[in-house]
Amino acid sequence: MPECLAFRVPTRHPADVSGLDALIASGAVAPEEIVAVFGKTEGNGCVNDFTRPLAVMALEASLSARLGLSPAEVGARVALVMSGGTEGGLSPHLLILARRETPGAEGRAEGKAEESKALAVGTAFTDDFLPEEIGRMAQVRATASAVERAMAAAGIADIADVHFVQVKCPLLTSARIQEAAGRGHEVATHDTYASMGLSRGASALGIGLALAEIAESALDDAVIGTRTDLYSGRASASAGIELMRNEVIVLGNAPGWRGPLRIAHRVMRDGIDLSAIQGALSDLGFPVAGQLAPDQAERVVALLAKAEPSGDGLIRGRRHIMNDDSDINATRHARALVGGVAAAAIGRTDLFVSGGAEHQGPDGGGPVAVIGRIQA
Amino acid sequence: MPECLAFRVPTRHPADVSGLDALIASGAVAPEEIVAVFGKTEGNGCVNDFTRPLAVMALEASLSARLGLSPAEVGARVALVMSGGTEGGLSPHLLILARRETPGAEGRAEGKAEESKALAVGTAFTDDFLPEEIGRMAQVRATASAVERAMAAAGIADIADVHFVQVKCPLLTSARIQEAAGRGHEVATHDTYASMGLSRGASALGIGLALAEIAESALDDAVIGTRTDLYSGRASASAGIELMRNEVIVLGNAPGWRGPLRIAHRVMRDGIDLSAIQGALSDLGFPVAGQLAPDQAERVVALLAKAEPSGDGLIRGRRHIMNDDSDINATRHARALVGGVAAAAIGRTDLFVSGGAEHQGPDGGGPVAVIGRIQA
Amino acid sequence: MPECLAFRVPTRHPADVSGLDALIASGAVAPEEIVAVFGKTEGNGCVNDFTRPLAVMALEASLSARLGLSPAEVGARVALVMSGGTEGGLSPHLLILARRETPGAEGRAEGKAEESKALAVGTAFTDDFLPEEIGRMAQVRATASAVERAMAAAGIADIADVHFVQVKCPLLTSARIQEAAGRGHEVATHDTYASMGLSRGASALGIGLALAEIAESALDDAVIGTRTDLYSGRASASAGIELMRNEVIVLGNAPGWRGPLRIAHRVMRDGIDLSAIQGALSDLGFPVAGQLAPDQAERVVALLAKAEPSGDGLIRGRRHIMNDDSDINATRHARALVGGVAAAAIGRTDLFVSGGAEHQGPDGGGPVAVIGRIQA
Amino acid sequence: MPECLAFRVPTRHPADVSGLDALIASGAVAPEEIVAVFGKTEGNGCVNDFTRPLAVMALEASLSARLGLSPAEVGARVALVMSGGTEGGLSPHLLILARRETPGAEGRAEGKAEESKALAVGTAFTDDFLPEEIGRMAQVRATASAVERAMAAAGIADIADVHFVQVKCPLLTSARIQEAAGRGHEVATHDTYASMGLSRGASALGIGLALAEIAESALDDAVIGTRTDLYSGRASASAGIELMRNEVIVLGNAPGWRGPLRIAHRVMRDGIDLSAIQGALSDLGFPVAGQLAPDQAERVVALLAKAEPSGDGLIRGRRHIMNDDSDINATRHARALVGGVAAAAIGRTDLFVSGGAEHQGPDGGGPVAVIGRIQA
Repeated sequence: MPECLAFRVPTRHPADVSGLDALIASGAVAPEEIVAVFGKTEGNGCVNDFTRPLAVMALEASLSARLGLSPAEVGARVALVMSGGTEGGLSPHLLILARRETPGAEGRAEGKAEESKALAVGTAFTDDFLPEEIGRMAQVRATASAVERAMAAAGIADIADVHFVQVKCPLLTSARIQEAAGRGHEVATHDTYASMGLSRGASALGIGLALAEIAESALDDAVIGTRTDLYSGRASASAGIELMRNEVIVLGNAPGWRGPLRIAHRVMRDGIDLSAIQGALSDLGFPVAGQLAPDQAERVVALLAKAEPSGDGLIRGRRHIMNDDSDINATRHARALVGGVAAAAIGRTDLFVSGGAEHQGPDGGGPVAVIGRIQA
Repeated sequence: MPECLAFRVPTRHPADVSGLDALIASGAVAPEEIVAVFGKTEGNGCVNDFTRPLAVMALEASLSARLGLSPAEVGARVALVMSGGTEGGLSPHLLILARRETPGAEGRAEGKAEESKALAVGTAFTDDFLPEEIGRMAQVRATASAVERAMAAAGIADIADVHFVQVKCPLLTSARIQEAAGRGHEVATHDTYASMGLSRGASALGIGLALAEIAESALDDAVIGTRTDLYSGRASASAGIELMRNEVIVLGNAPGWRGPLRIAHRVMRDGIDLSAIQGALSDLGFPVAGQLAPDQAERVVALLAKAEPSGDGLIRGRRHIMNDDSDINATRHARALVGGVAAAAIGRTDLFVSGGAEHQGPDGGGPVAVIGRIQA
Repeated sequence: MPECLAFRVPTRHPADVSGLDALIASGAVAPEEIVAVFGKTEGNGCVNDFTRPLAVMALEASLSARLGLSPAEVGARVALVMSGGTEGGLSPHLLILARRETPGAEGRAEGKAEESKALAVGTAFTDDFLPEEIGRMAQVRATASAVERAMAAAGIADIADVHFVQVKCPLLTSARIQEAAGRGHEVATHDTYASMGLSRGASALGIGLALAEIAESALDDAVIGTRTDLYSGRASASAGIELMRNEVIVLGNAPGWRGPLRIAHRVMRDGIDLSAIQGALSDLGFPVAGQLAPDQAERVVALLAKAEPSGDGLIRGRRHIMNDDSDINATRHARALVGGVAAAAIGRTDLFVSGGAEHQGPDGGGPVAVIGRIQA
Repeated sequence: MPECLAFRVPTRHPADVSGLDALIASGAVAPEEIVAVFGKTEGNGCVNDFTRPLAVMALEASLSARLGLSPAEVGARVALVMSGGTEGGLSPHLLILARRETPGAEGRAEGKAEESKALAVGTAFTDDFLPEEIGRMAQVRATASAVERAMAAAGIADIADVHFVQVKCPLLTSARIQEAAGRGHEVATHDTYASMGLSRGASALGIGLALAEIAESALDDAVIGTRTDLYSGRASASAGIELMRNEVIVLGNAPGWRGPLRIAHRVMRDGIDLSAIQGALSDLGFPVAGQLAPDQAERVVALLAKAEPSGDGLIRGRRHIMNDDSDINATRHARALVGGVAAAAIGRTDLFVSGGAEHQGPDGGGPVAVIGRIQA
């Protein structure tokens, strides 16, 4: 009977793997058990954020030695999802997810069905995309299919049991655009920065399709990046240059898993939607009158949220300046804001708030999930 | 019997005075009644923030025509305190404070002494400082004296009735440093940016001295900017190039004032101290289980808070990156964070969060005050 | 017989008009003679650059008092072209252009036709544009027509005598877009930032059309912003929110003008094209072996250049990072670069280098003009 | 008889070692011959520039495999000097320096002594410093001694033959400051950013001492960072967190070396001192009327320059805004400016311009060296 382990370790800089090393050295987790690593790194989270590849290089080097694999093989086996940007008070850290197989079912919670579920994780990958497929229906459909396989890997049969789906997806580069043109194919956009948003958006729509949040009939190439009313409330996508496929990580509560961890989620309707965070906390049994007390905050293993500036330049009717600031990128403002709101709720700052929420929640809002340790 | 009026109006850009104009046109306030204008403008809040002088120039031009005064005379009469920086989701706006004299006392609340107090405002100014006095005990003592005069102007006799003291203070420039040297005097620092912090710090210590938060025996030139344990919990200081004196605005609840507005304050111990904000709200009779409901948020006329990065690079033991970020100034991160926490509590984003909190609250924290409308 | 006067004065901050005041006080120029003021201000030159309106407000206030006009009337009479961004070593300054009428022709240079020409200035304005005309052929054609009128005002009959055409043009805002939609018209773009480029581009194409650099048959709405091979080598356009018409300033050498000033221009083919600058200097009789000597540099009254990052990310085959930098806007890098190259040639840093060169010179390059004082 | 090889290869991103790999694969250089790698990476060049460790990690990984050494052993053997910041038009690249031993002297240039010299390189290291030695005379003296050893390694006896000395030096961190305090020692500064400048400054003074540019009697702890009139015209220092010793690379022209490469240097007296660059080019036999022609530019293997903002805020009497810009760090402006001036001279942008020139040239200026290929 499997157990999904989750560990949060601080980092002193993007290449710092000492927390992971200590975790392994202590026996808390075995390298072979690690399924995914989420990381918040202190770059700008935009095009020239080199803290992400630096963290990946350091993680691959560390795991490579322990697993007897090449760095590339580590990357193929473990999903390494680095999210740049710790604006405001956010604290750089790693979230390490592992799957431990335990022989018996003795730890399984007895009782009602819901209570017998525990945190579950599953991963799946699409095939490599052609450049002309990125940001289009081909990517939507392949992602939806991968979500279904990842659910199966996690042993989740009911889509209501899925609470967060993280996707790492590719982007277009000039070279990729030219390669497609050489074969007579036109890509979705020639703006490489814009391709990140289209790729995230198509991935999110694929998640929404798999989770029946969006009807397939509503989808075509033209809605990607434009129809902000079409969204998944459980999707989180980040684009990176280092891959050509989508890597999907499904997190949910599933029967057949053991352990004290559970996940819940809500959709933040805007960047200051404290009640959404408190709703997710409440689902996990946390008291939500004001900020969590320190002992309760310790029981929160992870908060995962998406942030973006609203397109109309307003939050509840009041002007924000994110979209007009040519000194600080809009997504940086958005992460700082949501990070502040989330820290107000949780009372700690090592939270996984990432930017770029196309089709991930409503315009200006986004999904938020909390993984917590259930009290005995 | 006086009443302190407070109006919050949005701005579309730093020179936008249409909200003020509309307020006057509607008869809600007369130009002669205006005592002070606080403004959040969308600059960087640092050395080269020209949104502050732009807003001041626009406000002076608008009031100058209405009052029949020159722009300089407007500036001498009305305290114009512009604070740059609306990071995260903060919304640019003006807070207009006015003193209205009403003939009778018919509106006065009856009953217990505490209930009969209402929001009061008073201003006072020091003489111009010599450059060598800035950031030193001369500024501390003159500020303390001005606070006492501003309290008298507000009719506040009890220091416990003071809840927020805003000071606008000068800074050193190369020309001022040289002028002092020409007279054989050495200034507190040759670093003009650092002089802003010393001037704010000396001003805050002066406030703390006047409010008996700090013993005079603990103060000398050497502690200014260094002894972070010495602070006022009600001080807010901002430095500007456009003046050589300190301008002091005292806000409190005083007997002898009428109207529905009250002020309360707390000290945030760090940037995510939601409970301090909720404490101030609670003092004003707001329910504080989670975010204020929209009708309650409407009753909040102003939230005034100071933000700064903690010097040790930590928030509750977890690393923040504000002090190491060479792309975004640390105070910009701090405002974004506190703005997010405050918006989580209040449910709106037009909040007066300003940066640079030397001797204004503990290291990494700062005072927070709320002005609210009491329900009948 | 008219003379075009040109004065360069430094500014200590964006609202500093003391240099202009001193010029007028000294009798060097009369307020009524001033035709245009170009200014380099120290903002970011992008969307939220408020140093431009601050400088305009200060200039209008200063000239308003002297001319007995309202600030708005000053703006309607004198072309105030503020360009934000003094990256690298560029020095904030104003360039004041005036037209002085002198009774006789006694100062006129005798001799050959070319030698008898002197610096000439003329201005003209289009009507206000409808939002749906911005960035489209209507703006192209109206600009071309205004260029012809400005040439006539300057007494320039030969298009070869035009060396620099500065246009100040409008941009789209959300309100303007909606106003057009209310009348059933679709604008060229819904992206307000992109509208700045389209407006600059349409204006530049209009200049190229008037100067016969571009054939009318090559122009339609679709080429604006896309066909980088279509450009004027003498156009400089900057977009601003404060107007709805195009304001055109033509600079050339014309017969019938007197005085010691002349203008020359070249097209920089990329950002490091020193030879273009040296070519313009050479046309004016400057020695160009290396940097100008200080006495020669004094004779340069103005250098006017446009800068932009090349679209392919390369300068002479070597990668630049301007387009991938999410911390510093690409146009800021471009101004810093061209400012350095121009300062290398001239030996001074108070140069008018502005960004955003759509259809103003080839991709990655731009026009450069020099106004110099001819030696007797 | 040794030959100093120098190769310049472009990088597509900070971790790109494909150019180095291709160089080795082609046989142009053997891994064992590589003595030093200088790199310009596209970070901000400030505290949180993680492109430097990313490049170092990639270079160490590449060379580690080829040399059969651990990454740490590679770092101990090859000096890896990464300089962040390619502002303006600067192009990210690597400069690979190698020492090749060749059996005979057949290639040696005959003739006069000066002509028989060729580019020479030598390296040396100090012992690790204690934290309290950084930025103080202990670092000055140890650096001077290491320069002498590096000269000996390069076979340079005459200090006039030294043209550029690059030092990589340590900085203080909070942990190091506390470690010193624990032993009862106070460090030079508690400001970790300031410690970078003090470490660079002490290193530069050490170079100046070794090269007899500065008298030992003029030096003590108090002058470090303050006496800007004391400087070396051949020093270039950069501080990094990854070492506790100084690593010294001496470049000069020495008898006993063969090959077509030579080095020359000058001191730029300010950021726009084109004549200094042209002087160095002239020493190497390049024609200097304007920009180098493409075939001449090809013969320039490297330009190495230091850039910094002048402390008085002026360049030749005109104001620059580098020191007052809270959005872009002053050293970023300075690199952009000097990069533009150098590109104007050379006609290419892959130039090694680095920032932070304390005691490296006069205030606002800095050394510049050129390595060129002599024509047969």
